[in-house]
Amino acid sequence: MKLSKKNLSDRLDHVYDVIIVGGGAGGLSAAIYLQRYRLSCLVIEKGRGRSFWMQDLRNYLGLPPHTHGRTLLQQGQQHLQQLNGDYLLGYVENVVDEGDTFAVRVKVGKQDSTYPVFRSKYLIAASGIIDNLPQLENMQNVFDYAGYNLHVCMICDGYEMADRRCGLFVGSNGAINTAFVLNWFTPYITVFTHGLFEVSDEMRQKLKEHGYPLVETPIKQFIGHDHEMTGVELMDGTSIPLETGLISMGSHYFNEYLKDLPLEWNGQNLVTDPMCRTSHPRVFALGDLKVGINQISIAVADGTLAATQIWRDIRRASPPRIWEENLQSESALIG
Amino acid sequence: MKLSKKNLSDRLDHVYDVIIVGGGAGGLSAAIYLQRYRLSCLVIEKGRGRSFWMQDLRNYLGLPPHTHGRTLLQQGQQHLQQLNGDYLLGYVENVVDEGDTFAVRVKVGKQDSTYPVFRSKYLIAASGIIDNLPQLENMQNVFDYAGYNLHVCMICDGYEMADRRCGLFVGSNGAINTAFVLNWFTPYITVFTHGLFEVSDEMRQKLKEHGYPLVETPIKQFIGHDHEMTGVELMDGTSIPLETGLISMGSHYFNEYLKDLPLEWNGQNLVTDPMCRTSHPRVFALGDLKVGINQISIAVADGTLAATQIWRDIRRASPPRIWEENLQSESALIG
Repeated sequence: MKLSKKNLSDRLDHVYDVIIVGGGAGGLSAAIYLQRYRLSCLVIEKGRGRSFWMQDLRNYLGLPPHTHGRTLLQQGQQHLQQLNGDYLLGYVENVVDEGDTFAVRVKVGKQDSTYPVFRSKYLIAASGIIDNLPQLENMQNVFDYAGYNLHVCMICDGYEMADRRCGLFVGSNGAINTAFVLNWFTPYITVFTHGLFEVSDEMRQKLKEHGYPLVETPIKQFIGHDHEMTGVELMDGTSIPLETGLISMGSHYFNEYLKDLPLEWNGQNLVTDPMCRTSHPRVFALGDLKVGINQISIAVADGTLAATQIWRDIRRASPPRIWEENLQSESALIG
Repeated sequence: MKLSKKNLSDRLDHVYDVIIVGGGAGGLSAAIYLQRYRLSCLVIEKGRGRSFWMQDLRNYLGLPPHTHGRTLLQQGQQHLQQLNGDYLLGYVENVVDEGDTFAVRVKVGKQDSTYPVFRSKYLIAASGIIDNLPQLENMQNVFDYAGYNLHVCMICDGYEMADRRCGLFVGSNGAINTAFVLNWFTPYITVFTHGLFEVSDEMRQKLKEHGYPLVETPIKQFIGHDHEMTGVELMDGTSIPLETGLISMGSHYFNEYLKDLPLEWNGQNLVTDPMCRTSHPRVFALGDLKVGINQISIAVADGTLAATQIWRDIRRASPPRIWEENLQSESALIG
């Protein structure tokens, strides 16, 4: 059921089989599988994750190519509700490993917040990432285009950028290398540093050899209308026309709540085995949070894998269910 | 485009980047990704694969739980068509590795068949499996219930069998062990051997201890109406009431066309790396054909992985695309 401040006290004495931090594609898929494995789970979603912002989900089998990320999430939430899974809007503040259980402390409500603690045997970290965006004075100007023709994922949207004049917006010298992958889709690349860092001589040379202009003047604003970005206006007043853009400024990882657990990391990503188990036997990680490709289809499969492995663990540790009546009738016969 | 006998000659001189054998969930997902990576692919589907028979797809995120497998496939075919991918109904007879290309010989048409040979740089094996069913005199009787409440996949449909009187239909002594996993969902299990093999003393004892009756008399027919199986009638005239069933008789693997290639197998499954690459660097395997869990979500993610790795291979071997005009203008400036 959908938990809220009003009814969450019903669940404070319950030990869930699994608490899932994050109600994106991975978390919802795991929850659907877990409930179908007859395990109890609670999904805790902070709201407005990466898939929530997705305007067009163009590469997920079974959904038309203009499906909004929100549609996928809503469908998953309904699916979970039909399976009697619990769902709570809240922000996971920390997780304590108590040995057999985890204690998961959640902030619920932005005003008059309460801080309930839920318990589970297993933890699934599915809290994902969010893309860093160029920080302009007027952030609404960025939101007007990000996720439309100002993209954040080359695998998802490279096809839409094909042979177009494309701005590549980067936050570090290393990220400029994205240009030399993006050029599979289009060679008409202009790199914008927004004045954030010093570009190395080597990188300048490489860009020059490829014919990709480098713009280091800070950006004043994106130009365009109706969510279609048509260029960039710089702080010095010049304008550069564009047909599309890719933001490659790194990501914020929602993994702070895991920092007290002894987990193996690869940078900001969790290292997992093929069933999405982390180095902690009762902690699994899905989707963008783990090492791998950041795609909806991968997160959904990760949910399948983690849920299946947790089911195997719990099932194998449980006594077998006997058909009691048959034992009785047999002993009656023998008697 | 959709290929047929009429227009397939248009493609006989073309070297595809990838030929995908199998247009199920994995193959279609791979094809959608490949076309979006601006690679050319041909999907060859023999028709009536495992997902075609699926009555209810209950655990795939984004689709309502009563979506028919066919709906998923149709959506994927439309999606592929919008991306200009090629699709052919035909049966792949064999594959010859010519070094840089594969020659894929296809039988097209059941009557007046033609045998075109298509070529590609990479091959994706996504031809899957089909479940073995009990062989009864009247097979229509089996088809009437299989995929409805006579299930073939415990992970998919264990939830639907929960606490119900369940027939477990097996084809070998080892397969009886399925009962000791199925009992997570229901303990009311009756095992049917259809008289196909000798049950070991050890297994008889184990079933007895769990209270699961063993029926060795061959089955005459399933009883029921409107695709709802309500029991089994045996050859000796007795009837056994059931509420659901699980067929666990192994699978037929559609992998014959691969037998001339030097691939590493694990039984009938192909061994792959985390990106679904087999031991042959230009052959990938997806879904049920490779080692792993047989689920739609896994096959779809496998398609993502294989397509992405093939794109990386091809991209890295290609010359970078230069923005020529900028080079010219620069040399003009220098001049």
